[in-house]
Amino acid sequence: MIHLSVNLAGRSYPLFLAENLLSDSLLFKKTLKNRPFLIVSNQNLTEYAAVLVKTLEASSQDCLFLPDGERYKNIESLNVILEHLTERHFPRHGVLIALGGGVIGDTVGFAAAIYQRGIAFVQVPTTLLAMVDSSIGGKTAVNLGVAKNNIGAFHQPDAVIMDLALLKTLPGREYHAGLAEVLKHALIQDVDFFDWLMIHRTDIAKRQPEIILEMIQRSSLIKARIVELDEKEIGPRMLLNFGHTFGHAIEAYSGYHDFKHGEAVALGMLCALKWQGQNAIALQLKTLYQAWSLPTAIPAAYEPQRLFELMQHDKKKSTSAIRLILLAQIGQAFIHEESDFAKLKQFWSI
Amino acid sequence: MIHLSVNLAGRSYPLFLAENLLSDSLLFKKTLKNRPFLIVSNQNLTEYAAVLVKTLEASSQDCLFLPDGERYKNIESLNVILEHLTERHFPRHGVLIALGGGVIGDTVGFAAAIYQRGIAFVQVPTTLLAMVDSSIGGKTAVNLGVAKNNIGAFHQPDAVIMDLALLKTLPGREYHAGLAEVLKHALIQDVDFFDWLMIHRTDIAKRQPEIILEMIQRSSLIKARIVELDEKEIGPRMLLNFGHTFGHAIEAYSGYHDFKHGEAVALGMLCALKWQGQNAIALQLKTLYQAWSLPTAIPAAYEPQRLFELMQHDKKKSTSAIRLILLAQIGQAFIHEESDFAKLKQFWSI
Repeated sequence: MIHLSVNLAGRSYPLFLAENLLSDSLLFKKTLKNRPFLIVSNQNLTEYAAVLVKTLEASSQDCLFLPDGERYKNIESLNVILEHLTERHFPRHGVLIALGGGVIGDTVGFAAAIYQRGIAFVQVPTTLLAMVDSSIGGKTAVNLGVAKNNIGAFHQPDAVIMDLALLKTLPGREYHAGLAEVLKHALIQDVDFFDWLMIHRTDIAKRQPEIILEMIQRSSLIKARIVELDEKEIGPRMLLNFGHTFGHAIEAYSGYHDFKHGEAVALGMLCALKWQGQNAIALQLKTLYQAWSLPTAIPAAYEPQRLFELMQHDKKKSTSAIRLILLAQIGQAFIHEESDFAKLKQFWSI
Repeated sequence: MIHLSVNLAGRSYPLFLAENLLSDSLLFKKTLKNRPFLIVSNQNLTEYAAVLVKTLEASSQDCLFLPDGERYKNIESLNVILEHLTERHFPRHGVLIALGGGVIGDTVGFAAAIYQRGIAFVQVPTTLLAMVDSSIGGKTAVNLGVAKNNIGAFHQPDAVIMDLALLKTLPGREYHAGLAEVLKHALIQDVDFFDWLMIHRTDIAKRQPEIILEMIQRSSLIKARIVELDEKEIGPRMLLNFGHTFGHAIEAYSGYHDFKHGEAVALGMLCALKWQGQNAIALQLKTLYQAWSLPTAIPAAYEPQRLFELMQHDKKKSTSAIRLILLAQIGQAFIHEESDFAKLKQFWSI
């Protein structure tokens, strides 16, 4: 088992990576320390939940299932959790277990942040995207209409437990969407890792176990180190939003229907590179996208004016400019405040 | 003007006390530092809001009014604020101004805690209770059904601005309810202040300005010092819940109809003293309550069994015991875990 950690003053926590951790009763025992718990998952993950229930010697009473999908990452789902906890007098020293992808992790983490002004939670990510990105770093949130992640809190988990065996059966689209966030980490911070991804792109697409393990480890470490530098996202952590300002507009366009978050981020990264005229890098990305079945074009029917409006709903905007993360070169990102709104209204062909 | 402060590592903030601060444009300018703002208040305070709008050279567009009353301290009111902010693209560097009593302060503070993962807010308390207690210390929350303050966050304000002139026209019941929290501070921490309250009880009831100023200053300082010791309420800050475990049950009994929060706390403190057999102190309290028009008895129709059930909804409970704050003597409180539920079910005559 690989054991990494996120080191934050007084609130450090471990990341565990290995196959079959969902059945590792010793690991869960050590993590839960006899505290009461509730597993919160989504309706498509009842099989995984059943495994975890067995590991914890629990019952179906200890599970709560939410509907699956980004459109359920909202205040209504949040209230379902909060009312469930309240009705059952769930105690302040209890632990929520977020078993699922980014939507479950963000929603359950936020519920943990505000129930009784904050209780503990454990991330058990079931998708690649959640493992390498959203489960690490304590950013929790729900959407409010098209305003993505507009309501939330910084609340670090007690632990992140990544069962890599779950990736074997992860649907292709989910897996590929996660690769977009892996790639993002390489692009903003680590040119060697980018080269490694290029070299191993076929093995990665085939989900070769040792390659996946190394990929997740490197990607998680990049995320962990950035979080340690800037937990509250007032500086370098903003670089993790590379591809996200454009990407949010793209996924919100169809009400989160046409593209998964990672797919939208993949397109958003191409937008950012196109915006800068970084065409050589964009070309390399398209090679990876083809190997990884990621989209390489924004649908022609998407109207630039509407995309621009959706971009303004992005919470990272300031009043007179939109904040973009751009690349100086592979492995080196920077923050840019863009005020050429006329150009942003017309742009959007990649 | 009296200028106190709450000293928390890296996040200290001032408390300003004087008459007519609502019209002090210089003070507000210094506090807001040219940031965009939204005044959130309740529908009974439109006159105060109008004064503040003038002070800030703002317009009615910069105000949002919620319905008045503890029963509106809920997730629906929270959503009204969050949707208002989202629709207007309220920026992350903006400031919410909570103009009102404890309900407004708690609800607006919580909205500030979770909008875009946390924005700044300023407390402008308009009631005695909010001035001496709820506006200080960063505990923000809304109720979920009968579960009082069950959803919330620790989020400190940028400043607390107390306009003592507002107390002159505060309805009697509101003023007296606030005195209960002043008394609480004396009882748990400061016997000299308790003696001072006994001596000056008539001047306090008459709202003699110099006496009020000294009373608020002393009471606020007790609160501020406890918050500094234990911001997240894992230790001594729990003592501030004296009277609250009983009190919450009493106010929840009628759905927050029969008693104001401070009135319920007044009764709750008598319950705690009765529970301990501290009859001499209870008698002194009743003298104060009579001078201050506070209730001295729980309505006979209130059923003990139901009160006990409501007490269990109190979030401070642990699984097998209910946490009570009790008094060793005046000025010295302690935490007690009570597991004699049979006695708690029958108790409730004071």
